[in-house]
Amino acid sequence: MSDLLSKLRWRYATKKFDSAKAVPQEKVERILEAIRLTATSSGLQPYEVIVVNNPELRAQIQPHAWNQAQITEASHLLVFAAWDNYTAERINMMFDLVNEERGVRNEGWENYRQQLLNTYVPRDAETNYQHAARQAYIGLGTALIAAAEEEVDATPMEGFDPAKVDEILKLHERGLRSVVILPLGYRAAEGDWLVSLKKVRRSREDFVIEMK
Amino acid sequence: MSDLLSKLRWRYATKKFDSAKAVPQEKVERILEAIRLTATSSGLQPYEVIVVNNPELRAQIQPHAWNQAQITEASHLLVFAAWDNYTAERINMMFDLVNEERGVRNEGWENYRQQLLNTYVPRDAETNYQHAARQAYIGLGTALIAAAEEEVDATPMEGFDPAKVDEILKLHERGLRSVVILPLGYRAAEGDWLVSLKKVRRSREDFVIEMK
Repeated sequence: MSDLLSKLRWRYATKKFDSAKAVPQEKVERILEAIRLTATSSGLQPYEVIVVNNPELRAQIQPHAWNQAQITEASHLLVFAAWDNYTAERINMMFDLVNEERGVRNEGWENYRQQLLNTYVPRDAETNYQHAARQAYIGLGTALIAAAEEEVDATPMEGFDPAKVDEILKLHERGLRSVVILPLGYRAAEGDWLVSLKKVRRSREDFVIEMK
Repeated sequence: MSDLLSKLRWRYATKKFDSAKAVPQEKVERILEAIRLTATSSGLQPYEVIVVNNPELRAQIQPHAWNQAQITEASHLLVFAAWDNYTAERINMMFDLVNEERGVRNEGWENYRQQLLNTYVPRDAETNYQHAARQAYIGLGTALIAAAEEEVDATPMEGFDPAKVDEILKLHERGLRSVVILPLGYRAAEGDWLVSLKKVRRSREDFVIEMK
Protein backbone atom coordinates (compact mmCIF):
# COMPACT_ATOMS: atom_id res chain seq x y z
CA MET A 1 0.00 0.00 0.00
CA SER A 2 1.33 3.42 -0.81
CA ASP A 3 2.24 5.86 1.89
CA LEU A 4 -0.65 8.15 0.93
CA LEU A 5 -3.23 5.37 1.03
CA SER A 6 -2.07 4.29 4.47
CA LYS A 7 -2.40 7.88 5.70
CA LEU A 8 -5.92 8.10 4.28
CA ARG A 9 -6.80 4.86 6.04
CA TRP A 10 -5.33 6.13 9.31
CA ARG A 11 -7.24 9.38 9.44
CA TYR A 12 -10.82 9.65 10.68
CA ALA A 13 -13.12 12.45 11.83
CA THR A 14 -11.93 12.64 15.42
CA LYS A 15 -14.82 12.95 17.87
CA LYS A 16 -12.84 13.45 21.09
CA PHE A 17 -9.58 15.36 21.35
CA ASP A 18 -7.12 15.31 24.23
CA SER A 19 -7.32 18.95 25.27
CA ALA A 20 -4.01 18.68 27.15
CA LYS A 21 -1.98 17.88 24.02
CA ALA A 22 -0.93 20.75 21.77
CA VAL A 23 0.14 20.30 18.17
CA PRO A 24 3.70 21.67 17.74
CA GLN A 25 3.69 24.88 15.76
CA GLU A 26 6.02 23.50 13.06
CA LYS A 27 3.43 20.83 12.25
CA VAL A 28 0.67 23.43 12.01
CA GLU A 29 2.91 25.46 9.71
CA ARG A 30 3.44 22.53 7.36
CA ILE A 31 -0.31 21.87 7.24
CA LEU A 32 -0.96 25.54 6.41
CA GLU A 33 1.81 25.47 3.82
CA ALA A 34 0.23 22.46 2.09
CA ILE A 35 -3.09 24.32 1.89
CA ARG A 36 -1.34 27.42 0.58
CA LEU A 37 0.44 25.41 -2.13
CA THR A 38 -2.46 23.41 -3.49
CA ALA A 39 -4.46 24.26 -6.60
CA THR A 40 -7.32 26.72 -6.96
CA SER A 41 -9.28 27.73 -10.02
CA SER A 42 -7.12 30.05 -12.17
CA GLY A 43 -4.72 30.21 -9.21
CA LEU A 44 -6.84 32.91 -7.56
CA GLN A 45 -6.71 31.33 -4.08
CA PRO A 46 -10.14 32.83 -3.36
CA TYR A 47 -10.18 31.97 0.32
CA GLU A 48 -8.17 32.48 3.47
CA VAL A 49 -7.45 30.20 6.39
CA ILE A 50 -8.09 31.55 9.86
CA VAL A 51 -6.26 30.00 12.79
CA VAL A 52 -8.48 30.67 15.78
CA ASN A 53 -6.42 30.26 18.93
CA ASN A 54 -8.33 32.72 21.04
CA PRO A 55 -10.23 30.57 23.60
CA GLU A 56 -13.00 33.12 24.01
CA LEU A 57 -13.74 33.17 20.30
CA ARG A 58 -13.81 29.39 20.26
CA ALA A 59 -16.18 29.30 23.21
CA GLN A 60 -18.44 31.73 21.38
CA ILE A 61 -18.45 29.56 18.26
CA GLN A 62 -19.23 26.31 20.06
CA PRO A 63 -22.97 26.85 20.72
CA HIS A 64 -23.38 27.67 17.02
CA ALA A 65 -21.73 24.37 16.07
CA TRP A 66 -24.11 21.96 17.77
CA ASN A 67 -21.99 22.36 20.93
CA GLN A 68 -19.44 19.99 19.47
CA ALA A 69 -16.58 19.61 21.94
CA GLN A 70 -13.89 19.60 19.24
CA ILE A 71 -14.36 23.35 18.78
CA THR A 72 -12.88 24.10 22.19
CA GLU A 73 -10.96 20.90 23.02
CA ALA A 74 -8.82 20.59 19.90
CA SER A 75 -5.35 22.10 19.91
CA HIS A 76 -5.96 24.37 16.92
CA LEU A 77 -9.05 25.47 15.03
CA LEU A 78 -8.83 26.28 11.32
CA VAL A 79 -11.66 28.12 9.62
CA PHE A 80 -11.68 28.10 5.81
CA ALA A 81 -13.28 31.38 4.74
CA ALA A 82 -14.01 32.12 1.09
CA TRP A 83 -14.09 35.47 -0.64
CA ASP A 84 -17.65 36.80 -0.50
CA ASN A 85 -17.29 37.89 -4.12
CA TYR A 86 -14.83 38.15 -6.99
CA THR A 87 -13.95 41.80 -7.48
CA ALA A 88 -11.70 43.44 -10.06
CA GLU A 89 -9.38 44.41 -7.22
CA ARG A 90 -8.97 40.82 -6.04
CA ILE A 91 -8.50 39.38 -9.54
CA ASN A 92 -6.00 42.08 -10.48
CA MET A 93 -4.15 41.57 -7.20
CA MET A 94 -3.48 37.92 -8.08
CA PHE A 95 -2.62 38.56 -11.74
CA ASP A 96 -0.28 41.40 -10.73
CA LEU A 97 1.37 39.18 -8.13
CA VAL A 98 1.94 36.49 -10.75
CA ASN A 99 3.52 39.00 -13.14
CA GLU A 100 5.70 40.39 -10.40
CA GLU A 101 6.89 36.99 -9.19
CA ARG A 102 7.52 35.62 -12.66
CA GLY A 103 9.09 38.82 -13.90
CA VAL A 104 7.28 38.47 -17.21
CA ARG A 105 4.13 39.83 -18.71
CA ASN A 106 2.60 38.06 -21.65
CA GLU A 107 -0.35 38.63 -23.89
CA GLY A 108 -2.01 35.27 -23.33
CA TRP A 109 -1.96 35.78 -19.59
CA GLU A 110 -3.30 39.33 -19.90
CA ASN A 111 -6.09 38.12 -22.17
CA TYR A 112 -6.95 35.53 -19.55
CA ARG A 113 -7.08 38.26 -16.89
CA GLN A 114 -9.57 40.18 -19.04
CA GLN A 115 -11.64 37.05 -19.57
CA LEU A 116 -11.93 36.49 -15.82
CA LEU A 117 -12.68 40.16 -15.17
CA ASN A 118 -15.41 40.07 -17.81
CA THR A 119 -16.88 36.81 -16.53
CA TYR A 120 -16.60 37.02 -12.75
CA VAL A 121 -16.99 40.69 -11.87
CA PRO A 122 -20.48 41.17 -13.38
CA ARG A 123 -21.71 37.87 -11.94
CA ASP A 124 -23.80 37.92 -8.76
CA ALA A 125 -21.91 37.71 -5.47
CA GLU A 126 -23.60 34.50 -4.37
CA THR A 127 -22.51 32.59 -7.50
CA ASN A 128 -18.99 33.90 -7.06
CA TYR A 129 -18.94 32.98 -3.37
CA GLN A 130 -20.14 29.45 -4.17
CA HIS A 131 -17.37 29.08 -6.72
CA ALA A 132 -14.78 30.34 -4.22
CA ALA A 133 -16.14 28.02 -1.52
CA ARG A 134 -15.58 25.00 -3.76
CA GLN A 135 -11.90 25.93 -3.99
CA ALA A 136 -11.67 25.90 -0.20
CA TYR A 137 -12.67 22.24 -0.34
CA ILE A 138 -9.57 21.45 -2.43
CA GLY A 139 -7.68 23.01 0.48
CA LEU A 140 -9.66 20.92 2.94
CA GLY A 141 -8.81 17.71 1.08
CA THR A 142 -5.18 18.77 1.12
CA ALA A 143 -5.25 19.66 4.82
CA LEU A 144 -6.61 16.24 5.77
CA ILE A 145 -3.65 14.55 4.08
CA ALA A 146 -1.17 17.08 5.44
CA ALA A 147 -2.47 16.52 8.98
CA ALA A 148 -2.26 12.75 8.57
CA GLU A 149 1.30 13.09 7.29
CA GLU A 150 2.10 14.88 10.57
CA GLU A 151 0.16 12.25 12.56
CA VAL A 152 -2.17 15.02 13.63
CA ASP A 153 -5.86 14.27 14.00
CA ALA A 154 -8.47 16.45 12.35
CA THR A 155 -12.25 16.74 12.10
CA PRO A 156 -13.73 18.34 9.00
CA MET A 157 -16.94 20.06 10.15
CA GLU A 158 -19.77 21.63 8.20
CA GLY A 159 -22.18 21.48 11.14
CA PHE A 160 -22.13 25.10 12.23
CA ASP A 161 -24.04 28.29 11.55
CA PRO A 162 -21.86 30.20 9.06
CA ALA A 163 -23.61 33.53 9.62
CA LYS A 164 -22.91 33.33 13.35
CA VAL A 165 -19.29 32.32 12.83
CA ASP A 166 -18.86 35.17 10.36
CA GLU A 167 -20.23 37.53 12.99
CA ILE A 168 -18.04 36.21 15.83
CA LEU A 169 -14.88 36.35 13.72
CA LYS A 170 -15.91 39.63 12.05
CA LEU A 171 -15.42 38.04 8.64
CA HIS A 172 -17.81 40.37 6.86
CA GLU A 173 -15.37 43.23 7.43
CA ARG A 174 -12.71 41.20 5.64
CA GLY A 175 -14.99 40.30 2.73
CA LEU A 176 -15.00 36.65 3.77
CA ARG A 177 -17.62 34.01 4.57
CA SER A 178 -16.90 30.88 6.59
CA VAL A 179 -17.16 27.65 4.62
CA VAL A 180 -15.83 24.74 6.64
CA ILE A 181 -14.06 24.28 9.98
CA LEU A 182 -11.15 21.97 10.80
CA PRO A 183 -10.13 21.35 14.42
CA LEU A 184 -6.62 19.88 14.69
CA GLY A 185 -5.17 18.03 17.65
CA TYR A 186 -4.61 14.59 19.11
CA ARG A 187 -7.29 12.00 19.73
CA ALA A 188 -8.15 11.37 23.37
CA ALA A 189 -7.19 7.99 24.80
CA GLU A 190 -10.82 7.41 25.76
CA GLY A 191 -14.27 8.68 24.86
CA ASP A 192 -14.14 8.69 21.05
CA TRP A 193 -17.01 6.52 19.80
CA LEU A 194 -15.74 6.51 16.22
CA VAL A 195 -12.06 5.68 16.64
CA SER A 196 -12.45 1.90 16.80
CA LEU A 197 -15.14 1.59 14.14
CA LYS A 198 -14.35 0.48 10.60
CA LYS A 199 -13.99 3.15 7.92
CA VAL A 200 -16.74 2.40 5.41
CA ARG A 201 -16.65 3.41 1.76
CA ARG A 202 -18.60 2.22 -1.23
CA SER A 203 -16.71 -0.39 -3.24
CA ARG A 204 -14.68 0.65 -6.25
CA GLU A 205 -17.41 -0.89 -8.43
CA ASP A 206 -20.03 1.37 -6.86
CA PHE A 207 -17.87 4.49 -6.86
CA VAL A 208 -16.01 4.39 -10.17
CA ILE A 209 -17.70 4.21 -13.56
CA GLU A 210 -15.58 3.18 -16.54
CA MET A 211 -16.54 4.31 -20.02
CA LYS A 212 -14.34 2.36 -22.38
CA MET B 1 10.78 20.02 3.31
CA SER B 2 8.24 17.29 3.86
CA ASP B 3 7.49 14.78 1.18
CA LEU B 4 3.99 16.17 0.74
CA LEU B 5 5.15 19.76 0.31
CA SER B 6 7.69 18.71 -2.32
CA LYS B 7 4.93 16.89 -4.21
CA LEU B 8 2.71 19.96 -4.07
CA ARG B 9 5.58 22.08 -5.40
CA TRP B 10 6.23 19.59 -8.19
CA ARG B 11 2.70 19.47 -9.52
CA TYR B 12 1.22 22.07 -11.87
CA ALA B 13 -1.77 22.30 -14.19
CA THR B 14 -0.26 20.56 -17.18
CA LYS B 15 -1.03 22.34 -20.43
CA LYS B 16 0.49 19.84 -22.88
CA PHE B 17 0.45 16.08 -22.44
CA ASP B 18 2.54 13.54 -24.31
CA SER B 19 -0.24 11.61 -26.01
CA ALA B 20 2.08 8.65 -26.66
CA LYS B 21 2.66 7.94 -22.96
CA ALA B 22 0.03 5.99 -21.06
CA VAL B 23 -0.26 5.98 -17.28
CA PRO B 24 0.07 2.39 -16.01
CA GLN B 25 -3.23 1.06 -14.73
CA GLU B 26 -1.89 0.35 -11.23
CA LYS B 27 -1.10 4.05 -10.82
CA VAL B 28 -4.59 5.02 -11.96
CA GLU B 29 -6.01 2.52 -9.48
CA ARG B 30 -4.07 4.03 -6.58
CA ILE B 31 -5.27 7.53 -7.54
CA LEU B 32 -8.87 6.29 -7.66
CA GLU B 33 -8.40 4.51 -4.34
CA ALA B 34 -7.16 7.72 -2.69
CA ILE B 35 -10.27 9.53 -3.90
CA ARG B 36 -12.48 6.70 -2.69
CA LEU B 37 -10.87 6.76 0.77
CA THR B 38 -10.95 10.48 1.46
CA ALA B 39 -13.56 12.26 3.56
CA THR B 40 -17.01 13.43 2.53
CA SER B 41 -19.74 15.10 4.56
CA SER B 42 -21.35 12.47 6.82
CA GLY B 43 -19.48 9.85 4.82
CA LEU B 44 -22.14 9.90 2.11
CA GLN B 45 -19.67 9.97 -0.81
CA PRO B 46 -22.23 11.92 -2.83
CA TYR B 47 -20.36 11.72 -6.11
CA GLU B 48 -18.86 9.21 -8.48
CA VAL B 49 -15.71 9.26 -10.57
CA ILE B 50 -16.01 8.45 -14.23
CA VAL B 51 -12.95 7.21 -16.09
CA VAL B 52 -13.55 8.16 -19.70
CA ASN B 53 -11.29 6.09 -21.88
CA ASN B 54 -13.52 6.02 -24.92
CA PRO B 55 -11.77 8.24 -27.51
CA GLU B 56 -15.03 9.15 -29.24
CA LEU B 57 -16.60 10.41 -26.04
CA ARG B 58 -13.49 12.45 -25.33
CA ALA B 59 -13.54 13.93 -28.81
CA GLN B 60 -17.17 14.88 -28.29
CA ILE B 61 -16.37 16.60 -24.99
CA GLN B 62 -13.44 18.61 -26.32
CA PRO B 63 -15.37 21.34 -28.20
CA HIS B 64 -17.43 21.92 -25.06
CA ALA B 65 -14.25 22.44 -23.05
CA TRP B 66 -12.75 25.38 -24.95
CA ASN B 67 -11.13 22.83 -27.28
CA GLN B 68 -8.48 22.21 -24.67
CA ALA B 69 -6.07 19.58 -25.99
CA GLN B 70 -5.70 17.84 -22.63
CA ILE B 71 -9.18 16.34 -23.03
CA THR B 72 -8.04 14.10 -25.86
CA GLU B 73 -4.25 14.02 -25.44
CA ALA B 74 -4.01 12.97 -21.79
CA SER B 75 -3.69 9.31 -20.98
CA HIS B 76 -6.81 9.16 -18.80
CA LEU B 77 -9.73 11.50 -18.24
CA LEU B 78 -11.50 11.56 -14.87
CA VAL B 79 -14.86 13.27 -14.52
CA PHE B 80 -16.07 13.99 -10.99
CA ALA B 81 -19.87 13.80 -11.10
CA ALA B 82 -21.97 14.70 -8.07
CA TRP B 83 -25.36 13.32 -7.10
CA ASP B 84 -28.02 15.56 -8.59
CA ASN B 85 -29.92 15.37 -5.31
CA TYR B 86 -29.94 13.70 -1.90
CA THR B 87 -32.73 11.16 -1.83
CA ALA B 88 -33.90 8.92 0.99
CA GLU B 89 -32.76 5.95 -1.09
CA ARG B 90 -29.21 7.28 -1.41
CA ILE B 91 -28.91 8.27 2.25
CA ASN B 92 -30.32 4.95 3.43
CA MET B 93 -28.01 3.06 1.06
CA MET B 94 -24.95 4.59 2.76
CA PHE B 95 -26.26 4.20 6.32
CA ASP B 96 -27.24 0.59 5.62
CA LEU B 97 -23.82 -0.11 4.13
CA VAL B 98 -22.14 1.31 7.23
CA ASN B 99 -24.29 -0.87 9.51
CA GLU B 100 -23.58 -3.92 7.39
CA GLU B 101 -19.82 -3.35 7.26
CA ARG B 102 -19.50 -2.52 10.95
CA GLY B 103 -21.86 -5.27 12.01
CA VAL B 104 -23.43 -2.99 14.58
CA ARG B 105 -26.46 -0.79 14.73
CA ASN B 106 -26.62 1.95 17.31
CA GLU B 107 -29.14 4.50 18.35
CA GLY B 108 -26.92 7.57 17.90
CA TRP B 109 -26.16 6.56 14.35
CA GLU B 110 -29.82 5.85 13.56
CA ASN B 111 -30.80 9.24 15.00
CA TYR B 112 -28.19 10.82 12.77
CA ARG B 113 -29.68 9.02 9.75
CA GLN B 114 -33.09 10.48 10.60
CA GLN B 115 -31.60 13.93 11.01
CA LEU B 116 -30.06 13.78 7.53
CA LEU B 117 -33.25 12.36 6.02
CA ASN B 118 -35.24 15.17 7.63
CA THR B 119 -32.80 17.87 6.56
CA TYR B 120 -31.65 16.82 3.09
CA VAL B 121 -34.60 15.08 1.48
CA PRO B 122 -37.06 18.01 1.69
CA ARG B 123 -34.42 20.50 0.55
CA ASP B 124 -34.38 21.62 -3.10
CA ALA B 125 -32.31 19.55 -5.51
CA GLU B 126 -30.04 22.43 -6.49
CA THR B 127 -28.95 23.11 -2.89
CA ASN B 128 -28.32 19.40 -2.41
CA TYR B 129 -26.35 19.17 -5.65
CA GLN B 130 -24.20 22.16 -4.65
CA HIS B 131 -23.45 20.51 -1.33
CA ALA B 132 -22.54 17.25 -3.06
CA ALA B 133 -20.37 19.09 -5.59
CA ARG B 134 -18.29 20.61 -2.77
CA GLN B 135 -17.49 17.11 -1.56
CA ALA B 136 -16.15 16.24 -5.00
CA TYR B 137 -13.59 19.01 -4.52
CA ILE B 138 -12.20 17.23 -1.46
CA GLY B 139 -11.72 14.31 -3.83
CA LEU B 140 -10.09 16.60 -6.36
CA GLY B 141 -7.62 17.93 -3.77
CA THR B 142 -6.85 14.33 -2.86
CA ALA B 143 -6.44 13.25 -6.48
CA LEU B 144 -3.90 16.00 -7.17
CA ILE B 145 -1.70 14.73 -4.35
CA ALA B 146 -2.24 11.09 -5.29
CA ALA B 147 -1.24 11.81 -8.88
CA ALA B 148 1.87 13.70 -7.74
CA GLU B 149 2.80 10.77 -5.49
CA GLU B 150 2.71 8.59 -8.61
CA GLU B 151 4.65 11.21 -10.58
CA VAL B 152 1.64 11.50 -12.84
CA ASP B 153 0.70 14.90 -14.23
CA ALA B 154 -2.81 16.23 -13.92
CA THR B 155 -4.87 19.27 -14.94
CA PRO B 156 -7.86 20.23 -12.82
CA MET B 157 -10.38 21.77 -15.23
CA GLU B 158 -13.58 23.68 -14.61
CA GLY B 159 -13.59 25.20 -18.08
CA PHE B 160 -16.25 23.08 -19.74
CA ASP B 161 -19.99 23.13 -20.28
CA PRO B 162 -21.37 20.79 -17.62
CA ALA B 163 -24.76 20.40 -19.31
CA LYS B 164 -23.09 19.23 -22.53
CA VAL B 165 -20.77 16.83 -20.71
CA ASP B 166 -23.75 15.43 -18.80
CA GLU B 167 -25.49 14.86 -22.09
CA ILE B 168 -22.49 13.23 -23.81
CA LEU B 169 -21.84 10.90 -20.86
CA LYS B 170 -25.58 10.34 -20.22
CA LEU B 171 -25.14 11.38 -16.61
CA HIS B 172 -28.73 12.48 -16.14
CA GLU B 173 -29.81 8.85 -16.43
CA ARG B 174 -27.48 8.03 -13.55
CA GLY B 175 -28.72 10.93 -11.40
CA LEU B 176 -25.34 12.65 -11.70
CA ARG B 177 -24.07 16.06 -12.81
CA SER B 178 -20.50 16.73 -13.88
CA VAL B 179 -18.55 19.02 -11.55
CA VAL B 180 -14.89 19.05 -12.48
CA ILE B 181 -12.63 17.19 -14.92
CA LEU B 182 -9.14 15.84 -14.35
CA PRO B 183 -6.99 14.67 -17.27
CA LEU B 184 -4.08 12.47 -16.13
CA GLY B 185 -0.94 11.70 -18.08
CA TYR B 186 2.63 12.75 -18.64
CA ARG B 187 3.77 16.24 -19.56
CA ALA B 188 5.06 16.63 -23.11
CA ALA B 189 8.77 17.33 -23.54
CA GLU B 190 7.92 20.48 -25.47
CA GLY B 191 5.02 22.85 -25.97
CA ASP B 192 3.84 23.44 -22.39
CA TRP B 193 3.93 27.19 -21.74
CA LEU B 194 3.38 26.81 -18.00
CA VAL B 195 5.87 24.09 -17.07
CA SER B 196 8.90 26.36 -16.67
CA LEU B 197 7.09 29.25 -14.98
CA LYS B 198 7.25 29.81 -11.24
CA LYS B 199 4.33 28.61 -9.13
CA VAL B 200 2.89 31.74 -7.53
CA ARG B 201 0.93 31.80 -4.30
CA ARG B 202 0.08 34.61 -1.91
CA SER B 203 2.47 34.76 1.04
CA ARG B 204 1.56 33.07 4.30
CA GLU B 205 0.89 36.54 5.75
CA ASP B 206 -1.66 37.25 3.03
CA PHE B 207 -3.28 33.83 3.14
CA VAL B 208 -3.40 32.93 6.84
CA ILE B 209 -5.11 35.05 9.49
CA GLU B 210 -4.25 34.37 13.11
CA MET B 211 -6.73 35.23 15.84
CA LYS B 212 -4.86 34.86 19.11
